[in-house]
Amino acid sequence: MTQPPSSLPASDLPVVRLKPKANARAIRRGFPWVYANEMVLDRRTSKMPAGTIAVLEDNERKEIALVTVNPNSKIVCRVLDRDTRDVPDRAWFATRLDKALTLRERLFDAPFYRLVHAEADELPGVIIDRFGDTAVIQPNAAWADVLLQQLTDALVDVTGVKNVIKNAGGRGRQLEGLDNEDKVLVGSMPEGPLPVVMNGATYFADLSGGQKTGLFYDQRPNHGFAARLADGQRVLDVFSHVGGFGLAALAGGATSALCVDGSAAALELAAKGAEASGMSDRFEARQGDAFDALSALNEAGEKFGLVICDPPAFAPAKPALDAGLRAYERIARLASGLVEENGYLVLCSCSHAADLSAFTGACLRGIGRAGRRAQLIHTGQAGPDHPLMPQLAESGYLKSLVFRL
Amino acid sequence: MTQPPSSLPASDLPVVRLKPKANARAIRRGFPWVYANEMVLDRRTSKMPAGTIAVLEDNERKEIALVTVNPNSKIVCRVLDRDTRDVPDRAWFATRLDKALTLRERLFDAPFYRLVHAEADELPGVIIDRFGDTAVIQPNAAWADVLLQQLTDALVDVTGVKNVIKNAGGRGRQLEGLDNEDKVLVGSMPEGPLPVVMNGATYFADLSGGQKTGLFYDQRPNHGFAARLADGQRVLDVFSHVGGFGLAALAGGATSALCVDGSAAALELAAKGAEASGMSDRFEARQGDAFDALSALNEAGEKFGLVICDPPAFAPAKPALDAGLRAYERIARLASGLVEENGYLVLCSCSHAADLSAFTGACLRGIGRAGRRAQLIHTGQAGPDHPLMPQLAESGYLKSLVFRL
Repeated sequence: MTQPPSSLPASDLPVVRLKPKANARAIRRGFPWVYANEMVLDRRTSKMPAGTIAVLEDNERKEIALVTVNPNSKIVCRVLDRDTRDVPDRAWFATRLDKALTLRERLFDAPFYRLVHAEADELPGVIIDRFGDTAVIQPNAAWADVLLQQLTDALVDVTGVKNVIKNAGGRGRQLEGLDNEDKVLVGSMPEGPLPVVMNGATYFADLSGGQKTGLFYDQRPNHGFAARLADGQRVLDVFSHVGGFGLAALAGGATSALCVDGSAAALELAAKGAEASGMSDRFEARQGDAFDALSALNEAGEKFGLVICDPPAFAPAKPALDAGLRAYERIARLASGLVEENGYLVLCSCSHAADLSAFTGACLRGIGRAGRRAQLIHTGQAGPDHPLMPQLAESGYLKSLVFRL
Repeated sequence: MTQPPSSLPASDLPVVRLKPKANARAIRRGFPWVYANEMVLDRRTSKMPAGTIAVLEDNERKEIALVTVNPNSKIVCRVLDRDTRDVPDRAWFATRLDKALTLRERLFDAPFYRLVHAEADELPGVIIDRFGDTAVIQPNAAWADVLLQQLTDALVDVTGVKNVIKNAGGRGRQLEGLDNEDKVLVGSMPEGPLPVVMNGATYFADLSGGQKTGLFYDQRPNHGFAARLADGQRVLDVFSHVGGFGLAALAGGATSALCVDGSAAALELAAKGAEASGMSDRFEARQGDAFDALSALNEAGEKFGLVICDPPAFAPAKPALDAGLRAYERIARLASGLVEENGYLVLCSCSHAADLSAFTGACLRGIGRAGRRAQLIHTGQAGPDHPLMPQLAESGYLKSLVFRL
């Protein structure tokens, strides 16, 4: 037997144990989570501070993995490492970040991407978006909050970013019982919105006040696909946020793009993007409720060659599924009425609970109720800087259906 | 009531009728097929020549659609038109071809694409691939054979192609009881293989002797995605056909590409493509059985930064599903052993019977059996010149999974 390579023998770490009924085999095969009902939650385990590093054992006391424990979360253990003698220190983080960076540098010409996509990048619950010299970390699991200094140091080592911001607004943090205080961890908060070039358009990301981390990188390939359909078209982008689809469509040759969103701040950033891209003359914004706007445009008899609806998650979790699907159906019906004959309709969902088949069904019902028929010409997903852990099917949350009516 | 717009009143056409148990509602909503067990197959209907145009009625004698009838096929009726007074003549074909062409011209800069993708382009059973001035028609349903002259005339009218070839090799033709005689319908068979530029590489399509219609347009976006991962990599393309992935990878900067295929003719076309693309010095071909080649490369300890396996359909239909999934698993296992640490593995399936979930499962089992773990960074499908009819889920046959190991 060889010596343990790490300075910290596994036996120094606390041990947590699976119940006999737990699926140890699935975890050994790569499933990254252990739920509360699968764990022996004795008094000692239940008292562990959120973010404790421990060794997970099966019912027969055989080691399975290095895990982080949060007794307050539905997901009590998250697998950090298959080698129980590894230590999640600065070098350990650097190795994982370097691996994540290698993929993104291969995929993109400029350093604007999601650098870390949680479990799929072997950093459970951790999201890092990069905007050039600035990185935004969302530590959405307790362990990452505890080890934030090591993670941040490694992030600067590996990427050379000058500013690191902690965004504590993630829904995951509430489920983990964490605070919601944003913080500048390294350097400073960039002054004003940052320009980001994607699909030939310049977008602006406001890292201080924006939704999520200021810009949705996940839709990049779907923006790009829609842009291929935009040349010479009048375009409507509903739930436009900072102009994701609308600006890409203008860069793709749209004669005009009308962006509709509830947020005046988001529309201001969209307008700023249109200006920076030299496309202000073809850009129009309308602030207000999306359903109201869709209804008003229908009543006015407006028609567009390309309509995009990219709403917030109507069905983020199972209890909201039925209501969510009805909302998607309504969006599809209202949007279909605005599409020219042989025009294009892009319908998106970022709802975890509505799978592709359920979402497609809702869209088709809506299209049908509008008296239209559809070809499905493309089904898009999140871009490759949002890799999936194949064992977590639900991580494939983003669906972008491109119909021709 | 308005006058019927067509010269041919619906009553002049023979009528076929649904059984009470048939799902008339689904057909009214857009489902394009009627199976034998849903039809009243009386003596008159059973004697209809394959390809007869008829009016489909429901059990209450209400008209549903204009259909084509083939009593010898499992699919007895295919919906041609929702308007029973329409006539599938040259002008009717021209309207549909024009609609199909509009989509492709929007998507592609050059006239090389699948122009008609059967039901989704409202021409049931008809496949048309375009190679510049030459079009290849696969009339895979009887009605298209019967109306081939009108279809061909309209195709020349709409696209201006100079040569039209009939490819009678489709599996669908056997199921429809049709002959397998290829024919030149207009102009002449192009002399020698035709060059086709895609993803920065020049391919060659042999329209006279090739598999399918000489080139697989469906994989174009997946070739393109793999090329983004190829820069500086040693690449292995197994089941390469005419070099689909391999040549795109070379155009993407691969240091070398080894194409493996059972067909010497296909590999010759791949080599010709490498030469025309100025990439011969980085191209290598090996003829032989793919499983044997994968095993031999494993035994030799070879490693590649990017490995692609795009086999023929191992599970074309349900009876072959189990054996097919085992074959996909074996491919995944053998291929995984050849991928460098942090390298990329592209596994494709064009099997109708193996859905995405079953295929992904087989791939993960194979990868796991090779002792590797995977990130799933992209799930590709057929390109947008292969639209789907949303009601025919099975038409989404092509899956291309991009893993990082």
